Amino acid sequence: METCEESTTIGKVITCKAAVAWEPKGEFVVQDVQVEPPHAMEVRIKVTHSSLCRSDVFFWANESLAHTFPRIFGHEAAGIVESVGEGITDLRPGDHVLPIFTGECRECKYCASPKTNLCSKFGVASLETGMKSDGKSRFSVQGKPISRFLGSTFSEYTVVEYAYVVKINPAAPLDKVCLLGCGVTAGIGAVRKIAQMEAGATVAVFGLGTVGLAVVKEAKLQGASRIIGVDNKASKADEGKRFGITDFLNPDTLNKPVDEEIRELTEGGVDFAFECVGNPNVMATAFESCQDGWGTTIVIGVAGRATVTIPTRYLLSGRCMKGTLYGGYKPKTDVPELVEQYLRKDLDVEEFITHNLPFTRINEAFKLLLAGDSLRTVLHFDDIIR
Amino acid sequence: METCEESTTIGKVITCKAAVAWEPKGEFVVQDVQVEPPHAMEVRIKVTHSSLCRSDVFFWANESLAHTFPRIFGHEAAGIVESVGEGITDLRPGDHVLPIFTGECRECKYCASPKTNLCSKFGVASLETGMKSDGKSRFSVQGKPISRFLGSTFSEYTVVEYAYVVKINPAAPLDKVCLLGCGVTAGIGAVRKIAQMEAGATVAVFGLGTVGLAVVKEAKLQGASRIIGVDNKASKADEGKRFGITDFLNPDTLNKPVDEEIRELTEGGVDFAFECVGNPNVMATAFESCQDGWGTTIVIGVAGRATVTIPTRYLLSGRCMKGTLYGGYKPKTDVPELVEQYLRKDLDVEEFITHNLPFTRINEAFKLLLAGDSLRTVLHFDDIIR
Repeated sequence: METCEESTTIGKVITCKAAVAWEPKGEFVVQDVQVEPPHAMEVRIKVTHSSLCRSDVFFWANESLAHTFPRIFGHEAAGIVESVGEGITDLRPGDHVLPIFTGECRECKYCASPKTNLCSKFGVASLETGMKSDGKSRFSVQGKPISRFLGSTFSEYTVVEYAYVVKINPAAPLDKVCLLGCGVTAGIGAVRKIAQMEAGATVAVFGLGTVGLAVVKEAKLQGASRIIGVDNKASKADEGKRFGITDFLNPDTLNKPVDEEIRELTEGGVDFAFECVGNPNVMATAFESCQDGWGTTIVIGVAGRATVTIPTRYLLSGRCMKGTLYGGYKPKTDVPELVEQYLRKDLDVEEFITHNLPFTRINEAFKLLLAGDSLRTVLHFDDIIR
Repeated sequence: METCEESTTIGKVITCKAAVAWEPKGEFVVQDVQVEPPHAMEVRIKVTHSSLCRSDVFFWANESLAHTFPRIFGHEAAGIVESVGEGITDLRPGDHVLPIFTGECRECKYCASPKTNLCSKFGVASLETGMKSDGKSRFSVQGKPISRFLGSTFSEYTVVEYAYVVKINPAAPLDKVCLLGCGVTAGIGAVRKIAQMEAGATVAVFGLGTVGLAVVKEAKLQGASRIIGVDNKASKADEGKRFGITDFLNPDTLNKPVDEEIRELTEGGVDFAFECVGNPNVMATAFESCQDGWGTTIVIGVAGRATVTIPTRYLLSGRCMKGTLYGGYKPKTDVPELVEQYLRKDLDVEEFITHNLPFTRINEAFKLLLAGDSLRTVLHFDDIIR
């Protein structure tokens, strides 16, 4: 027995509100779009909450991707399954879910390995504008296709492949756990799964946005003895301290290179340096800031096809450089447990939510993010008036 | 009670034969040199065997280091303690020892950590021409100082600081275990301690000299399912196969980049790539040859102050780059156990000894190494006729 609301939409095209970006850097137009029913192995989700992430900005602001517009952005979200396509057995209408930007098919060699959260069939497909099965988007406006972007969660309804949909405990508040869909989880996992730091470790975190502050918060929980936050926005000093940094360095106001300052502060460098910016020069600086012998640089920031240049002699002296996407967490395997941890209060996301806004005020939310005046703004979809 | 021979030299300057390099790339002149008694915390060793290593060549051939000549090279060796300086309590005349190029003071933060074999007091000091205490060499020729180079083992007698001297089981044949002083140990440790590979792992080894072949041999022992050897010397194909490579690639005769070939052969890349050349371009190629998700590049080759450039997106996709010096082994803590393993036949070095020569034929040994016609040539010091 499905609920009344669900039974009225299953199998039908849904017309609902979505925020459509018609051109790079263009205003979002909240307007009616048509959302097709899910094809085989796809899931249609009623999005309840979507937070804004820097990756949305990166692809929205990218002029070279003009051909992918009009496009519906958004990928850090929570919702409820409205209907499922043929072949889906582990999800059903009414399930509470997080759509995740990286998938888990549970069949490929990556999914079979505990060492990675990559998936060779359903990886991160930020350049794909349609679905994998037929290359077409399930969104349109009066017959004109509108590109998808990852989960395309800036829409009341969205369609994604099964591998990207994680069923979670329905007791979890969707307006909070939506944050587990991207940045906060990336930061937590970088500390827990990738660094696996010991209590007493020294840490430098480059970039104190949501990801960086999630690293800070988790490093503090793991007993880091010193957490040096690096950011060129002065207001991050106080914000960083609320999350757990012990020192704040603004490279713009130092009279020496920041890596030199870090090595002095820590008598040789930190045990772990986290790059949460996505800038190859910052990655190299992070590597320079590390301790010989075991200092590890963990790259979290996405820098596209950029390269990073590092001195070989520091590799010989035992430094290591690695990286992580989504904190190394496998969506279906690991994220439900993170939600349980949230429910047990072993993991917190509230502190990252600086703003809550009705979905229709998405342009305001973007401005806050662009200005660096917010961490996470959660858009609430329950304000739509028909 | 010391032996008669020892009692005649203790406390006195010893005149003995050493191979002196008077200028970069110059012939070695086997001639009388004067070797001072050891100062406080120093040890004078009667060298019995010294093998040749590429690092000797690197510093001997370096024109920019002309100011460090005349110099006595050699660092991969075995010998017997002749006398000890004031303060030495763990070594005495007659002890069988390996002088190692990197030290272990057992007091610094590195020595206190199980994560590294660096030593902040007695690290690798390849540019130092004298002893740490007074900056002076203990070698001279008719009053003219002759520079040291690490253990300076191309001499019948040498003086090194205590931290670089490892006491070993006197049952071990010194003409064999002298090889544990550098290259072979570097290769074995890179596999055992740094890679910690699982059985079935796929491996690429760049450079099939002694270090690379030690990696190959050890990877085979650890159950690697595929070991791809890469070298641009055709004769390394057969030699590599004797040590365990399953495939041989000569980049000069391939019609595609070697990393592309490796990714094709292994359906995506190897689990571990070892760089045993010391060339930043090869390091980058090794990184490109690795599997996403967990592929690890281990740099063993020394490239001085060179930098390596790698794509950041492969870090995000889980690849890792690190390195190791002397295989991560702490000299005093770990090397005696490696000697025991040799005695138990759990570790083999014989296969690397392609030549044995009297010490006086050192120039011939160098030519073999420069031509790539030898792996290790062991120089025997018992041929000196007075």
